[in-house]
Amino acid sequence: MRVNGLPRRTIEALPGGDAVTVIDQRQLPHRWSLERLDSAVAVHRAIREMWVRGAPLIGVAAAYAMALQCRLDAGDTALREAKAWLDGARPTAVNLSWATRRVLEHLLPLAMAERATAAWRLAAAMADEDVAINAAIGRHGLALLQSLAARHGGRRLNLLTHCNAGWLATVDWGTALAPVYQARRCGIDLHVWVDETRPRNQGASLTAWELGQEEVPHTVIADNAGGHLMQHGQVDLVIVGADRVTARGDVCNKVGTYLKALAANDNGVPFYVAMPRSTLDLSLVDGLGGIEIEQRSPRELTHVAGLDARGEITEVALTPPGSPALNPAFDVTPARLVTGLVTERGVLPANEAALRAIDG
Amino acid sequence: MRVNGLPRRTIEALPGGDAVTVIDQRQLPHRWSLERLDSAVAVHRAIREMWVRGAPLIGVAAAYAMALQCRLDAGDTALREAKAWLDGARPTAVNLSWATRRVLEHLLPLAMAERATAAWRLAAAMADEDVAINAAIGRHGLALLQSLAARHGGRRLNLLTHCNAGWLATVDWGTALAPVYQARRCGIDLHVWVDETRPRNQGASLTAWELGQEEVPHTVIADNAGGHLMQHGQVDLVIVGADRVTARGDVCNKVGTYLKALAANDNGVPFYVAMPRSTLDLSLVDGLGGIEIEQRSPRELTHVAGLDARGEITEVALTPPGSPALNPAFDVTPARLVTGLVTERGVLPANEAALRAIDG
Repeated sequence: MRVNGLPRRTIEALPGGDAVTVIDQRQLPHRWSLERLDSAVAVHRAIREMWVRGAPLIGVAAAYAMALQCRLDAGDTALREAKAWLDGARPTAVNLSWATRRVLEHLLPLAMAERATAAWRLAAAMADEDVAINAAIGRHGLALLQSLAARHGGRRLNLLTHCNAGWLATVDWGTALAPVYQARRCGIDLHVWVDETRPRNQGASLTAWELGQEEVPHTVIADNAGGHLMQHGQVDLVIVGADRVTARGDVCNKVGTYLKALAANDNGVPFYVAMPRSTLDLSLVDGLGGIEIEQRSPRELTHVAGLDARGEITEVALTPPGSPALNPAFDVTPARLVTGLVTERGVLPANEAALRAIDG
Repeated sequence: MRVNGLPRRTIEALPGGDAVTVIDQRQLPHRWSLERLDSAVAVHRAIREMWVRGAPLIGVAAAYAMALQCRLDAGDTALREAKAWLDGARPTAVNLSWATRRVLEHLLPLAMAERATAAWRLAAAMADEDVAINAAIGRHGLALLQSLAARHGGRRLNLLTHCNAGWLATVDWGTALAPVYQARRCGIDLHVWVDETRPRNQGASLTAWELGQEEVPHTVIADNAGGHLMQHGQVDLVIVGADRVTARGDVCNKVGTYLKALAANDNGVPFYVAMPRSTLDLSLVDGLGGIEIEQRSPRELTHVAGLDARGEITEVALTPPGSPALNPAFDVTPARLVTGLVTERGVLPANEAALRAIDG
């Protein structure tokens, strides 16, 4: 997608295969900052500290981390250890372990000397594959939006999204926002309500920013406001991404997604989840009982960074010093609240038969 | 309730009847700042800019504003105009127009010369009445918590509240938090999940602060997190305040309340609304269609103020400059999602028969 009018991916391999460039997303929307990562350690840190985030992008970044690790030590033990260590950087997104396992399984049968080059090629292929997958998600989602627009007789469509499942969360296009970008290019009149998405504000800082760069009409709202808008007919469709989807279609995504799914259900608003197949975890059926929910630092809630009057990024405290905070990063939306899953293979119902059928 | 161990009300009349002292709640939890208000204009500003907020406190402050107006011009026209102008300071809370109407109706039959003194006495009586009402709400809510505690066999009770319906929202005690304070004094083991309550963060800044002052165990959470906690059995009861309740029990309260009510309903968690009778608006039945929802400045969402590293209250921008924001301040929770209304007359079901019966 475009940044200041120029095409860009969220992760780009540098010639020579010794580093990748990523966007330091912690600084958006205030600063545009590219960072060079030249080791698995650097990528691990970028994932853990959320310079890069979003399940698909985390997966590709971790694949590059495995490739960078090969330059230091491509032995079986070193690679297995690197995989386990990288997987721990963010425990909830299944794409991370999916990607590192894929690289590991590709490398283990190869001779040591071939591994670094093979890993780099695989990571690059996975990046391209992610772009193709998201473009396909976008096409299938576009068909949904086209039929919705036809039913609305040309009235502007109002979508609502939570967190950032846009191109910043993937290598390009995004998952939940891919249909939005494709619809916009087809001339469908639409507008996106952007949930702020506390506590890290990925909606207000990332989704609003990337929609602005692509000139998609949008409005930032408090996470609290979506239900009210749905009650008043101001939301035609909700579309979000996912960090992990179980075999029966339970959706683990940014905390607060469940509340929007409840409100959509209560108001007859369709609730879609856009996701690549790699987000599917067929080893789990019950999302509520089975998925480890990452508990992040309370400081993400008690403090917030923004641009002060002098143009500096400044952190301020929001809570009384003596008040503790709890920061679960995800929640699980039961399959019963999900209208459909928009995947690269088409729009599927959230049930076990449909989801097991697209595997493989 | 206590501030640094000393008892305090949110609004205190100064001797002589020429001014009141209020807490500038915009500066909490970072600064303790008392402001002297000596005119209806000053009170109007304090209400509009939310130095004072919370439906019951707004009502009492507006009563004092009417009394202060009498010192300038106690004529019928001046008082009617003052009432209309004060009512416009915050359009959603019904207590505001209820309080100004009560003062006006009390004054109109009196001689001009008697009005200033009579108005001041009535405002003081209304303040005392608010304290007594909230203490009664607290007793009725306490009975609820005692029976819940008994069923839980001594396990700590986890309550969840949204926004601030504590003593800062009233003259003293609070509405939703009055039962909490009374339960705490009775030795019931409880803990309160405090919704941050974007965009003005009344939970993180006011509720957390006042619970801390009263040494009630509590934890601040993102507004997004409550559903997740309910799914995992971490919430035994939700209790919130209200800005307006219709004849059938639809509850208008801080935006986001509806989402918590949906989650409580989905997880079998009791959802209570604490309110004085003055919050009841029997002229309305349908809350969704009938209540004007105040739209506040987008800046409350795009910017936030907090304490910076130097100890200064600093405002920072959170969103990209080109992204608009929408800030509806309230939503309506349909009566079907409300387990009960905790009033000074007891705990009532949210239906028209029960609510019309307590009027008068």
